[in-house]
Amino acid sequence: MKNNTRTIQTIRQMFDARSIAVVGASADPSKYGFMTLDCIIKGGFQGKIYPVNPKGGEILGLRAYTSLMELPRVPDVAVILVPVQAVPQVIRDAGQKGIPGVVITTAGYREVGRDDLQQELIEIAEKNNVRIIGPNIEGFIYMPGKLNAQFFPVIENQGPFATISQSGSLTNGLAEWADQEKLGITATINLGNQVDICESDFMEFLAQDDAVKAMGLYLEGVKNGRRFLQALQRVTPRKPVVILKSGRSSAGEKSVASHTASLAGAHKVFHAACRQYGATPVDNLQDLYDYGKLLSTMEIPQGNRLLILSSSGGIGVIAVDEAETLGIDGPALPQAFVDEVKALNLSPLGSYTNPIDLAAIWAHEFKEVALAADRHDVADVFLINFGDPIEGGGDMIIELKKQINASIAVSYMGGARDEAVDRPRMNQAGVPVFSTPERAVKAIAAAMEYGRFQRKIGTPATMAPSEIYKDTHSRHEPDTNTPADFLLEPRAVALIEKYNIPYPPHYFGSTLDELTTAAHDMGYPVVLKVVSKDVIHKSDSGGVCVNIKNSQELKTEYEAMTSRIKEAHPHAVIEGMLVCRQADRGVELIVGAMEDPVFGPTLMVGMGGIFAEIMKDTAFRVAPLTPAHAREMLMELKGYPLLTGARGSASCDVDAVVDLIMNLSCLIVENPDIKELDLNPVRVYEKGILALDARIMKN
Amino acid sequence: MKNNTRTIQTIRQMFDARSIAVVGASADPSKYGFMTLDCIIKGGFQGKIYPVNPKGGEILGLRAYTSLMELPRVPDVAVILVPVQAVPQVIRDAGQKGIPGVVITTAGYREVGRDDLQQELIEIAEKNNVRIIGPNIEGFIYMPGKLNAQFFPVIENQGPFATISQSGSLTNGLAEWADQEKLGITATINLGNQVDICESDFMEFLAQDDAVKAMGLYLEGVKNGRRFLQALQRVTPRKPVVILKSGRSSAGEKSVASHTASLAGAHKVFHAACRQYGATPVDNLQDLYDYGKLLSTMEIPQGNRLLILSSSGGIGVIAVDEAETLGIDGPALPQAFVDEVKALNLSPLGSYTNPIDLAAIWAHEFKEVALAADRHDVADVFLINFGDPIEGGGDMIIELKKQINASIAVSYMGGARDEAVDRPRMNQAGVPVFSTPERAVKAIAAAMEYGRFQRKIGTPATMAPSEIYKDTHSRHEPDTNTPADFLLEPRAVALIEKYNIPYPPHYFGSTLDELTTAAHDMGYPVVLKVVSKDVIHKSDSGGVCVNIKNSQELKTEYEAMTSRIKEAHPHAVIEGMLVCRQADRGVELIVGAMEDPVFGPTLMVGMGGIFAEIMKDTAFRVAPLTPAHAREMLMELKGYPLLTGARGSASCDVDAVVDLIMNLSCLIVENPDIKELDLNPVRVYEKGILALDARIMKN
Repeated sequence: MKNNTRTIQTIRQMFDARSIAVVGASADPSKYGFMTLDCIIKGGFQGKIYPVNPKGGEILGLRAYTSLMELPRVPDVAVILVPVQAVPQVIRDAGQKGIPGVVITTAGYREVGRDDLQQELIEIAEKNNVRIIGPNIEGFIYMPGKLNAQFFPVIENQGPFATISQSGSLTNGLAEWADQEKLGITATINLGNQVDICESDFMEFLAQDDAVKAMGLYLEGVKNGRRFLQALQRVTPRKPVVILKSGRSSAGEKSVASHTASLAGAHKVFHAACRQYGATPVDNLQDLYDYGKLLSTMEIPQGNRLLILSSSGGIGVIAVDEAETLGIDGPALPQAFVDEVKALNLSPLGSYTNPIDLAAIWAHEFKEVALAADRHDVADVFLINFGDPIEGGGDMIIELKKQINASIAVSYMGGARDEAVDRPRMNQAGVPVFSTPERAVKAIAAAMEYGRFQRKIGTPATMAPSEIYKDTHSRHEPDTNTPADFLLEPRAVALIEKYNIPYPPHYFGSTLDELTTAAHDMGYPVVLKVVSKDVIHKSDSGGVCVNIKNSQELKTEYEAMTSRIKEAHPHAVIEGMLVCRQADRGVELIVGAMEDPVFGPTLMVGMGGIFAEIMKDTAFRVAPLTPAHAREMLMELKGYPLLTGARGSASCDVDAVVDLIMNLSCLIVENPDIKELDLNPVRVYEKGILALDARIMKN
Repeated sequence: MKNNTRTIQTIRQMFDARSIAVVGASADPSKYGFMTLDCIIKGGFQGKIYPVNPKGGEILGLRAYTSLMELPRVPDVAVILVPVQAVPQVIRDAGQKGIPGVVITTAGYREVGRDDLQQELIEIAEKNNVRIIGPNIEGFIYMPGKLNAQFFPVIENQGPFATISQSGSLTNGLAEWADQEKLGITATINLGNQVDICESDFMEFLAQDDAVKAMGLYLEGVKNGRRFLQALQRVTPRKPVVILKSGRSSAGEKSVASHTASLAGAHKVFHAACRQYGATPVDNLQDLYDYGKLLSTMEIPQGNRLLILSSSGGIGVIAVDEAETLGIDGPALPQAFVDEVKALNLSPLGSYTNPIDLAAIWAHEFKEVALAADRHDVADVFLINFGDPIEGGGDMIIELKKQINASIAVSYMGGARDEAVDRPRMNQAGVPVFSTPERAVKAIAAAMEYGRFQRKIGTPATMAPSEIYKDTHSRHEPDTNTPADFLLEPRAVALIEKYNIPYPPHYFGSTLDELTTAAHDMGYPVVLKVVSKDVIHKSDSGGVCVNIKNSQELKTEYEAMTSRIKEAHPHAVIEGMLVCRQADRGVELIVGAMEDPVFGPTLMVGMGGIFAEIMKDTAFRVAPLTPAHAREMLMELKGYPLLTGARGSASCDVDAVVDLIMNLSCLIVENPDIKELDLNPVRVYEKGILALDARIMKN
């Protein structure tokens, strides 16, 4: 991994450029080499612009140089738009000239199967000490430097939102939306193939840029899972990060042997990891933009209370529907506040419960009621919910924002010309405006969640994930040659016991005599399990027998099992038998750990049996984690009420489950050779827990 | 219920008006009486407009009359904007004058607690033979008649979408969106308090209007549940109906005694009923508009296959994510098609699997590939997925629509000026355009579902729901005075057996002797249950004992239970005991029926025990239903795989469950005095089923 601080300095130099070279600049308006140069000029870049084209001459009124070597001074950045075969020489020239970084728009590398060309690119850049953004991108825009270094679009409005995107068209779409409604952007960054500078570097760069208040990422993968978490850990305490990752419905790794791995799926683990590190994962582009808009403008709320103040009943009701669905508090209104509002003599048709329906379209009424609500500390966030045109609504809201403590957002629909004029004005003034109440409420919910995360920071620390692995990327190259290696259960049990994970009293032996003695010592009833490398699915092969009540039954079952196994697996080598004290009934969980291909060691907990398998009632976190994370995992389960005494049963020892998860976290981090691990089932009691089966697969 | 055909004729006369009176017209621009008149004039109404104001004179250049009586001819409709106390006289005048219907914008009735005024309104209107739209509304717009009879907005574009909305501001918002992007509307209808003409009447009216291709409804309640279903049953085979109903998160009826009723919730039942009758329920305003837009323009697809054709990779991937999440087929591309496309020599960076990434922004490439895809019948719907500006994209799409068989929709983002110009042009030409790929895909999924519904019509008939009740509305007035009346289990069992619902062999008796004889005859093991009006929660009071193996155990348990019950309920009258043959283990369901406050008799099925209670894994349908509906209910359950042999177990007798649901449907329809009914659990076997407990509560 390259030096972090230096990488960020280089990005800053490239983005804050005082001069830029455009290599492959063209006078033909249908060429990207023309469009990019045109955008830089139209964007109002104040520094020096050097078109480079082997033919020289003049392009768009600027002198064109025949190569980078010919430039009169060293530009801070070069945008490269030449064909793929011409790129290496341009990078060599850039290195020789001393240009710190280049933006390679050229495509035709790994994305079309040319890993060889991509590798060559990396080597030449390293040798020549040139940093790369790209290749296979449309460029970047950095508004503080008025640098529109992309094919299109030309962005006019600077604002507090910044985007990082693996896809060029998504980058443009997001930037244009922000530009059109005058939210504005600080930067849009296109990632492409990320041969060098990656999403994590850009996140850290933007975190240090005071103009940026929130960032939105579109990712198709991350370059290095642990580096990504490390970056989130540094960034999210300071600024909200909203992330859309594609591939959400992909089936995930196919060839997995454990329940844990089969239940994981890339999307579930990715979302869990994002939340664990304070980021806001979303499922679609609109949420990415909406959340980014609100989080970059509205003050992060210090609580969960929402007041909805509407011009009509209908729009208030649908806002409340969304709020209740998302678990947002709709506080009752204090009588003193209601009295104060009633004294204002507003419309007799109004309704003064939350949501308040003013039944009016007069801006000043909204203002008076909102000011009163703020004096009475009615809520943490006010959603001003306009239906129909509200004359002067924009000015009123902009004034109101200055006068109140509560955070403020607006939904505006059916407002015709008033809406068209006021929407961008409010966005620009830092009050985010949405076109439906539900979209506003969803974004507010995201801000409330981010607020909760911020308030938790400083409570029990999260271990730095970077301390586990220096480079998970290389570590997780698929190792398809070694067959999966299952630990025999006695060895698996020995390992979990070393990590203080309780398992029932047990004995591993090979003769009936010693098993009988052991069973007698531990007390009946007992369970008998076959131990054999060749019998992986014990239950299916008749290799497990429960509820053995005495030595006579033990003898019968021992013999029956031995002959069943011999019949089913004639060539199986039977290592011996495991006899365990039978555990009492209890609530069943499945608890597991696995090596996630992106993030490495990852933990899962789910409700037992069919709950996990059919209902997919599972929760994930990357390891290591804090007890708070472990508890959140359990609370995420739909079946959590079963642990806390639903249906009149006794409540279970949740603390013991939290301990178990923490212990398993240590185990999986300290034993990087473990690929998958299932404890299935884990029985949870009023006091304590027991893992009844341990299944470990190594790489 | 008023005569249906006549109601629709009256609506047509009012909407197709050749003349209109505006009662309460005003020269003061801040008054609704001014705004409405102004809108009618600006909207370009071609008929006669008669302002009515007691002061007479001239308003907005038109002669104002002092009362309806003074008008030179009988207008087809009058819009009433006078204060609430003046309304009765206006209606009397309207009746005397012979005006068929009035639109009452005035508020101040039931919505503010003045049920008395509302009742007076109804009576006066009936007496004077005047039909009412409203009160408490903003009006209506009917574009074929260029009649903008609302405060605002003035709509300019007629189009294939029509809205019916209980809320004025939602009406306006939807109409403005459609107007702004030139989708256009046929009509927007504001419902308000619906004292007379209701949502169902308007649906049927719009279904008969050829200009309307799809309708969108916003409802806060329905006036009469069965009338509503009847209307859907008439309308949805002809036109798509999209419905947003507020109150989705409300907790539902609180005081319910059965599991069925406690699991229902208004929202779940409402959505289920809508789907059952071919409507498309949605959860937010944006979906209401998006689905309405697509369903009113795009041809309803005849299959589930979607081809995504993109200008870039990123937007294609997020479209596929949404499609896979929604269960849409992304067919593989036939080799012959791929060969044909490759022969076109398009960009070497393109990718020719589904989603196709053209890696290009040239309109003609999209067209050539789409034409080839249509020749090869690659898919039922083509999503043309534009990122970045596509010059000439609009013209190309409009041409393409004429040339292909597949249905076509567009997503367009990051398209700058090209997008701004082409979006309304495409909408107007009948190709719906969305601003994100996910929004387009969601709407396409809704159209595919509607297509499946249409193709099913004509298969086993759905009984007309109207044949059950003439007027559910009056029938379901809450009856809070009568205490709930539980049937004793033997009576409940007798009732379900009458409907061929199997229950284990059983005997109800009061002496140990007769119970012992019965147990001997049916065979041990048996279950013993107390039968007492005073012991409703049998299990909790120790009133159920299972697994009784012989007469000795029966005696012991009989005596123990008798004394337990006496102790727990000293004053309980014990009617006797029920002894039942103990049933074998099997997959457990809960099956129930209840009187829904909106729709009347309603059925529920859920996975047994905690699945239903904690996981809320339940499905609902209104009764009566078809076997196909019953089967769909089961397939809706997340736990359905448990019935079809998940985890290696034998598959269950799903047909027997379908029979059970059909039988229960008859039972609940034929016994309207039943309020709630639980069969919990129902055991399902490889062959047959058994209801193990029947709990019936009457009104």
